[in-house]
Amino acid sequence: MTRTFGGIELGGTKTVVVLGQPGAIREREEFPTTTPDETLSRAVKTLLHWREHGLLDAAGIASFGPVRVAPEAADFGTMLDTPKPGWAGAPVLSFVAEALSLPLAIDTDVNAAALAEYGAGAAQGCPVVVYLTIGTGVGGGVLLNGAPLHGMLHPEIGHVRLRRMAGDAFPGICRFHGDCVEGLLSGPALVARFGRHPGEVEAGDRVWDAVAHDLAEVLAMLVLTLSPQRIVVGGGVTNRQPHLLPATRSRLPHILGGYLRDCTHAALERLVVPPALGDDAGPMGSLILAEQALAAKGAN
Amino acid sequence: MTRTFGGIELGGTKTVVVLGQPGAIREREEFPTTTPDETLSRAVKTLLHWREHGLLDAAGIASFGPVRVAPEAADFGTMLDTPKPGWAGAPVLSFVAEALSLPLAIDTDVNAAALAEYGAGAAQGCPVVVYLTIGTGVGGGVLLNGAPLHGMLHPEIGHVRLRRMAGDAFPGICRFHGDCVEGLLSGPALVARFGRHPGEVEAGDRVWDAVAHDLAEVLAMLVLTLSPQRIVVGGGVTNRQPHLLPATRSRLPHILGGYLRDCTHAALERLVVPPALGDDAGPMGSLILAEQALAAKGAN
Repeated sequence: MTRTFGGIELGGTKTVVVLGQPGAIREREEFPTTTPDETLSRAVKTLLHWREHGLLDAAGIASFGPVRVAPEAADFGTMLDTPKPGWAGAPVLSFVAEALSLPLAIDTDVNAAALAEYGAGAAQGCPVVVYLTIGTGVGGGVLLNGAPLHGMLHPEIGHVRLRRMAGDAFPGICRFHGDCVEGLLSGPALVARFGRHPGEVEAGDRVWDAVAHDLAEVLAMLVLTLSPQRIVVGGGVTNRQPHLLPATRSRLPHILGGYLRDCTHAALERLVVPPALGDDAGPMGSLILAEQALAAKGAN
Repeated sequence: MTRTFGGIELGGTKTVVVLGQPGAIREREEFPTTTPDETLSRAVKTLLHWREHGLLDAAGIASFGPVRVAPEAADFGTMLDTPKPGWAGAPVLSFVAEALSLPLAIDTDVNAAALAEYGAGAAQGCPVVVYLTIGTGVGGGVLLNGAPLHGMLHPEIGHVRLRRMAGDAFPGICRFHGDCVEGLLSGPALVARFGRHPGEVEAGDRVWDAVAHDLAEVLAMLVLTLSPQRIVVGGGVTNRQPHLLPATRSRLPHILGGYLRDCTHAALERLVVPPALGDDAGPMGSLILAEQALAAKGAN
C-alpha cells in the first residue's frame, strides 16, 4: 500500500505545503510567511483537508532556524532566537501536532533539502553532504550517511566569520554579526554591497570578485572541516547568477593551497554543484521527514 | 578472555608504541619520528616482540596526516602530501601489515584521540565531539556518535583560514597557506609571532590577545559548523599555557553574537575543555582502533 505524506516547508519569506511521496509532489500550496499563528494555521488547514480525504499518513516540517531539533529537549520543535519578528519562541511542532494526530517530524529546511538531494538529487551516494542555501538568508545543512547532523543545536553555517578579501571594506548587514556569511552573501547583503539589485550588475563586473571570494572562503572552510564528497549550493542568489559558482570554484585551488590532492577543475565540478531538485528540495525533504516519522512509529 | 592490543601513535615529532587495553596502557616505548623506514621498522619490531610473547591480538595506527583512511581506496593507509620530509607517499599501513599478520586499523591521530576521550575521557556521552590538538602542528578530529568523520579525506581543520584580529599583521608560517590555523597557532608559529619561546612570555602580556582571538575564531567556526557538544583542546601549546583556554572562552559570546542561547560562562566551560587523558589520548585511541579491527574481523 502506497502511503501519502504531507509536508510543510516553513521559509523565512514563504511557506510551501505539499502532498505526495518523496520524489513525487502531487499537490502544492504556497503563501507568504506572516505571523506564526496565521502561517501555521493556514498550513494546518491544508493538511487537515487532505487528511479528511484520507490522504495523509504522516507529516514533516522543514523549518527555517534556529529551531530545536533534539526530540529529548523540553522545547523540541520550538523556534529559538530568530531575527524574524514574532517567531522567537513559536511552538512550531506542537502547534501542528495539536491539530493533527499523525506521526510528525521536524528538522531544518536545509537539512531537509540535503535529505532530498541525497535521496533523489545531486548528492546521491555521498556519505558526507553539505547543502548550502544562499537567498534571503544563508543556511547550511549537513548529512552524514544520510542522517542530518544535529549536535548541540544544528549547524549555523550562515553565521561563520570569514577571512575577507584585501581591500573589501563592506561591513555586512547581519544584525547579530555584521560580516558573517549571511551578512556578506545573502540577497539583501548583495543589494547593500552593490547599492542596486544584483540582477542589474553584469556578470563581468569586478564587484562580483569579493562575492566569489567570500563564497570560496565558505566552501574551503567546509571542505577542510567536514571533508564532504558533495556541497550542493542552492538558493536564489546562486540560482539567478549562474556565473557565481564557476567563479567560486576557480578560487578554491588557491585557497586550499595544494594541500588537498585532486583539486582539479573536474574534481571541483563534482564537489560543488547546483541542486538537482531546484526549489523542490525543501518540500521534498519535508515529505522524507514525514516518511521517516511514519517508519519511526513502526507503522510501515 | 581478555584480549591484548598494540598501538602506534605516529606523530610528526615522536612515535609512541603501546601495549594494553583501551584505558590501560601496560607497556610503552617512545622514540623520535625520523624516516618512514626507520620509524615504522622500529615500531614493527616492538609489536613483533610482543606478538612472539603471545601478547598481541590486533594493532591500531593513529597517524599524523593527511593519510588515506578510506578502506576502499587503492592507496588506503598511505601518507598523502605532507610537508614532513620523506613521508609523502609512505605506505604506513601496508608496511605494518606486511610485517604483522594481525587485524589492523588506521585513522588520524586526532580521530584516535577523540575516540579515547569519547570512550573514557572528557567527551563521554557526547554525540558530536571535536578533538583539536595545538602543538607542533594543528589538527582536528571529529566524532559522530562515536564514529570518526572521514568524508572525502578527513577533516583538515588546521588549514582553515580565519578572520584576523584588527591590527594583527603576523603573516603566519604555514608553508602551504601562511596564516591558516596551523600557521597562526602552532608552537613554531608562536615562536615566530613572539620572537621568543612562548614559555618566556607572561600570561598577562597583551601579545597573547591575538592568539586567544585566533583560537576563539576557530572554536566559533567549529560551533557554527558542527554544533558539537564538546570540543577537547589538547596539545603542547594549550597544555603549557593554562591561561589560554579561559581567555579564549571569554571571547566566544562576543563572536557568537548572542545568536546561540546558553552561551554562559558555565556552558562554555562544559563545551570547551582540556583533555582528560592528556598525552595518552592518542596512544589509547590507537588501542581502541585495534579493538575495533579485531571486532570487525568477527574474532571477538
